[in-house]
Amino acid sequence: MNEADFLARLRGLATHPAARALMDDAAVLGNLVLTHDMIVEGVHFLPDDAPENIAWKLVAVNMSDLGAKGATPVGVLLGYPLSGDAAWDGAFLDGLAEALETFGAALLGGDTVSAPAGVPRSFGLTAIGRAPACGAPARSGARPGDDIWVTGTIGDAGLGLAIRQGRAMGLGSAADAYVRPQPPVQFGGIVAPLVHAMMDVSDGLLIDAQRMASASGCAIVLEVEQIPLSDAYLMFQVDALDARLAAATSGDDYQLLFAAPPSQSAAIAKQASRVGVQVTCIGQCLAGTGLVLHNRGEGVPLPARLGYQHDA
Amino acid sequence: MNEADFLARLRGLATHPAARALMDDAAVLGNLVLTHDMIVEGVHFLPDDAPENIAWKLVAVNMSDLGAKGATPVGVLLGYPLSGDAAWDGAFLDGLAEALETFGAALLGGDTVSAPAGVPRSFGLTAIGRAPACGAPARSGARPGDDIWVTGTIGDAGLGLAIRQGRAMGLGSAADAYVRPQPPVQFGGIVAPLVHAMMDVSDGLLIDAQRMASASGCAIVLEVEQIPLSDAYLMFQVDALDARLAAATSGDDYQLLFAAPPSQSAAIAKQASRVGVQVTCIGQCLAGTGLVLHNRGEGVPLPARLGYQHDA
Repeated sequence: MNEADFLARLRGLATHPAARALMDDAAVLGNLVLTHDMIVEGVHFLPDDAPENIAWKLVAVNMSDLGAKGATPVGVLLGYPLSGDAAWDGAFLDGLAEALETFGAALLGGDTVSAPAGVPRSFGLTAIGRAPACGAPARSGARPGDDIWVTGTIGDAGLGLAIRQGRAMGLGSAADAYVRPQPPVQFGGIVAPLVHAMMDVSDGLLIDAQRMASASGCAIVLEVEQIPLSDAYLMFQVDALDARLAAATSGDDYQLLFAAPPSQSAAIAKQASRVGVQVTCIGQCLAGTGLVLHNRGEGVPLPARLGYQHDA
Repeated sequence: MNEADFLARLRGLATHPAARALMDDAAVLGNLVLTHDMIVEGVHFLPDDAPENIAWKLVAVNMSDLGAKGATPVGVLLGYPLSGDAAWDGAFLDGLAEALETFGAALLGGDTVSAPAGVPRSFGLTAIGRAPACGAPARSGARPGDDIWVTGTIGDAGLGLAIRQGRAMGLGSAADAYVRPQPPVQFGGIVAPLVHAMMDVSDGLLIDAQRMASASGCAIVLEVEQIPLSDAYLMFQVDALDARLAAATSGDDYQLLFAAPPSQSAAIAKQASRVGVQVTCIGQCLAGTGLVLHNRGEGVPLPARLGYQHDA
């Protein structure tokens, strides 16, 4: 059974409306938003990543889900396998403390177990946040006519991973994007009242945009040349279509993707400017289905791989 | 760093009152109770345990924490490493569905990841419940003069593990207690308004009673001959002190331990009888500190090992 089959069976158990049929970034129970993400050595981080950074990433990927629902972080429950290496565990706690302080989340509870020695590390975190007063935006709310926006820049973490693996050259700031993602959680809460749909970009901009289109029952057209790339990314790339598509399919961005009516454009830009978050309109939502790419006015075939597919 | 040191450092991060300083079975956030427990192959279950039973145990150990706070189960978030074995994963889902239905909890969300092949399995679950109207009883509320009560029978799961490992002979019902714990979650909610303190017995009756005494700032005296043993347990034991102490230190019972004033005794017995839960008064809370054992009116030295100590 691959992950898609397994998820299909899980959905059969997720009958509570709070589960949002497991089709959203998080569960929404009353005014609380709840999410649980795991990270696994060799999948989500590298064996020689610093423990401080692994702890940061564990917190950040969960905070990204809260931000995507416009939620204000409250706290976390940690599932921690003790490594048996006191220095390693201590450094992990340092990174955990720093991340929790940065995102404004408290440690509420959890569990520690003895990890079997010599096996890849794996960590789980449950994050709880307060939903915004307007309600937590779903990924399924995009409507024809909406603009599609993304925060920050795309592709830095993918480049960062390639640098860490010796597959690419680049600046430290790109490597940082891989090991220390900075999801714009606060901005998620600010922009939530202005959007029809929101989710985070975790598996790749293209695959996540396709998921928003599918969940919303509409088509999304992205203008590839509008996808925001960082200076650090562009410095070691030919600014060509392939590089932009690579950025849009590499994943681990932990940025926000949202759909909003054009009437909110000025308010979105103003709020983003106020808190220093970059926002870029990268496309539109249309009647129809699926994902369509344009580049400088011309159609572009979808790449074979749109992002991380979870085909276990 | 062993688990005690690690937990001490974690407590430094758990400054939110909802965390109850990580000294309780669960976090209490507004009217919600939240807990996260992991189970690990070779620690909490055996490699050849049926996947249905492993899923049941994962749910049950978390429901036990909810019941200990008098909470009514609402839902769970699952952290699941896909095994790559479709039959195994499917059987796990069967057990998960059965357990969730039994305890009245919905699947709200979670995460699946690809498990590295050939390593011990490990699962995490976060459970969410609604606190009782009286508030969630803490383990720290026992007062001198309180009676100490326990639900069900003690030691069956420990015997069940010994049977599964070929270290003891016994009936299937004892083996069932190890692989399919049945925490009295509903009774936890019923008895919550009558108690001063409550927790579940997971690591061993003696160590957990000692923890209640320590958290409450009082002494607890247990009458060893009153500790309730099942017929299945007694059938293969000499009903002697050693057997009772073995039962009281073996853990995995997932029964409720609670402290209540003698004025509530009749109400506790009546409510327990109404829902078919066995309750036994096994001791008293006194001014002082620590855990004291009596057997038929005589003092008994504490065993060297009071239960599972989490010394990683």
